Amino acid sequence: MTERLPFSITARDGAARTGAITSSRGVVRTPAFMPVGTGATVKAMFPEDVKATGADIILANTYHLMLRPGAERIASLGGLHKFMHWDGPILTDSGGYQVMSLAKLRRISEAGVTFQSHLDGATIELTPERAIEVQCLLGADIQMVLDECTPFPATYEEAKKSWDLSLRWAERSKQAFAVQASPEQALFGIVQGSVYPDLREISARALIDIGFDGYAIGGLAVGEGQDAMLDMVEVTNAVLPQDRPRYLMGVGTPEDLLAAIARGIDMFDCVMPTRSGRHCQAFTWNGRLNLRNARYADDAAPLDAESACPAAHYERAYLHHLVKSGETLGSMLLSYANVQFYQELMTRARDAIAQGRFAAFVEDVKRRYRMSNDTDED
Amino acid sequence: MTERLPFSITARDGAARTGAITSSRGVVRTPAFMPVGTGATVKAMFPEDVKATGADIILANTYHLMLRPGAERIASLGGLHKFMHWDGPILTDSGGYQVMSLAKLRRISEAGVTFQSHLDGATIELTPERAIEVQCLLGADIQMVLDECTPFPATYEEAKKSWDLSLRWAERSKQAFAVQASPEQALFGIVQGSVYPDLREISARALIDIGFDGYAIGGLAVGEGQDAMLDMVEVTNAVLPQDRPRYLMGVGTPEDLLAAIARGIDMFDCVMPTRSGRHCQAFTWNGRLNLRNARYADDAAPLDAESACPAAHYERAYLHHLVKSGETLGSMLLSYANVQFYQELMTRARDAIAQGRFAAFVEDVKRRYRMSNDTDED
Repeated sequence: MTERLPFSITARDGAARTGAITSSRGVVRTPAFMPVGTGATVKAMFPEDVKATGADIILANTYHLMLRPGAERIASLGGLHKFMHWDGPILTDSGGYQVMSLAKLRRISEAGVTFQSHLDGATIELTPERAIEVQCLLGADIQMVLDECTPFPATYEEAKKSWDLSLRWAERSKQAFAVQASPEQALFGIVQGSVYPDLREISARALIDIGFDGYAIGGLAVGEGQDAMLDMVEVTNAVLPQDRPRYLMGVGTPEDLLAAIARGIDMFDCVMPTRSGRHCQAFTWNGRLNLRNARYADDAAPLDAESACPAAHYERAYLHHLVKSGETLGSMLLSYANVQFYQELMTRARDAIAQGRFAAFVEDVKRRYRMSNDTDED
Repeated sequence: MTERLPFSITARDGAARTGAITSSRGVVRTPAFMPVGTGATVKAMFPEDVKATGADIILANTYHLMLRPGAERIASLGGLHKFMHWDGPILTDSGGYQVMSLAKLRRISEAGVTFQSHLDGATIELTPERAIEVQCLLGADIQMVLDECTPFPATYEEAKKSWDLSLRWAERSKQAFAVQASPEQALFGIVQGSVYPDLREISARALIDIGFDGYAIGGLAVGEGQDAMLDMVEVTNAVLPQDRPRYLMGVGTPEDLLAAIARGIDMFDCVMPTRSGRHCQAFTWNGRLNLRNARYADDAAPLDAESACPAAHYERAYLHHLVKSGETLGSMLLSYANVQFYQELMTRARDAIAQGRFAAFVEDVKRRYRMSNDTDED
């Protein structure tokens, strides 16, 4: 099955690795950060600008798109890539996470999950088979099995029971995928097990037995703290095959990304750069800035002189004015600059790994971020 | 004084004329439509995209900018052009219109107008001299005299009294401008007089006696209806000098623009393309569309196949999805497409005038707009 998604590792530095995933729609350089295009749009960004930041792949949300505008509608319009003007690879999640976090009146059974849409209250059933069907209708290049994202905190027994169900769903997801997907598409399994090392190990081994094109680590960054998260990443990566991509779902801050890369993670997604951009926060090579702060009202310096992003060359005083005025252009510029910062962070991480100086690179970024504790004075 | 703003008319077709205004920051092809950049941003658009639509000049609002971020601040940051990343010409209004429509507790005296900021309640005085000072601090290429935008409806006596005050303010504005402005900057007078032809004539003649680089027609499109508006345009243009630009303030729909061009107007500004873009409305070469309408949910046609705008090539089904979902990208794409439509309308109007077929062009556009009465079914 691994021929579906060729993955070559070109350099290693400790546990960190850099390489390339080859999808039919283009090469994904790893470590890779996937901007999140929840509802078929990376919020407040033109798709050509998303591409210009250096993003090789984006993520879209099955849950959101199946509810609005509908997977069958997108298929009849020619698929998600055409719909949202993105011709590169797209990874879709399975919808499981959003069902837990957004939908109303959830009822989980062996068959799947029944819930009410948060948009119009319609009752909808999401099974492992339907999750794959939706992702195939969207035309996703990399698809995810339906799983139950174990709530945090969970007792050992709760986490084990949740994982047992997710494992059976993973098997059914793979069977459905084998029937429905095209040879260019790939399927990832998702390791769960909360903060229990042995559950993570068991989960990873069981998924390897089924066999997937890549392996995600789910159920983290949900409140367990960075230390616990990184412990689970280490435990899991010790078991996962070296020759398949490893994807840490929903993570995270620049510091989180680098710490996870150091432990062998290849792929990430997170709403942080875009959501922060809509909330006046900027990620720069000189740390995190809150553009609402009055200190920027007369600051003629560019947002980030070190960034190659056109949006990062606007003056801080202007960005301060835009966000204070609630102008859309403020969200547009900060989202663009943040997504580009995340991509530049990945580019520099890849280069550092290739050159055997990843640890020094991480220390440098951490120092820059420690030095700039922009307070929320406004 | 006219050497400040060379204006050459290259062709006429009836009363319509096409030509070019030469500003130190670039040539403005006329008839010209100025997108409105209220608070130092044409809302929801990158400045390079505003330029790409074909806009030669934009308008910015003195009232908004003097309140936030402040004219002195913009001056200390290098002026409005640098601040907002727009290197072409900028016309600023005098602030009078917004004082009447937005500010609280207005008190008009011979000296000027005192009001409370709608942002923070601060008491501010705007005199003719201060209005010029603010526009010079911003670095506006074309500046406007402070006037009282006569409320509508107004009795003849009210309109005359209002105009008498505006005339005295126009004289003071010109005196202040002569002292403060640089030789590259220009000043326009504003004809008032409500819907009274003789007041419009008197107003125009009095302003000509003072002498300005161009003449605006104000106090229209405030509820008097298109017929009355066009009557006032005709009356006024019969008096205004042929060799100076004529600017109809705050107008309007595509049909309004063409009817005013047919009567000899050279310049326009209006929030309509951007405001409509944020409210799901599109201007296209096939008429006005309301993208919220359910009829577009499965419409695979591009927004406007006839437009050269990249944003107009997105499918209607996608734009419908974006606006139904409240996604910022919907406002971004529709604002961009609308501003470009307005610019293409001006380009085609200029070409039609140059080729002596302006009346036929107007009929064609009017027919297209009559045929597409997109209802607000949603």
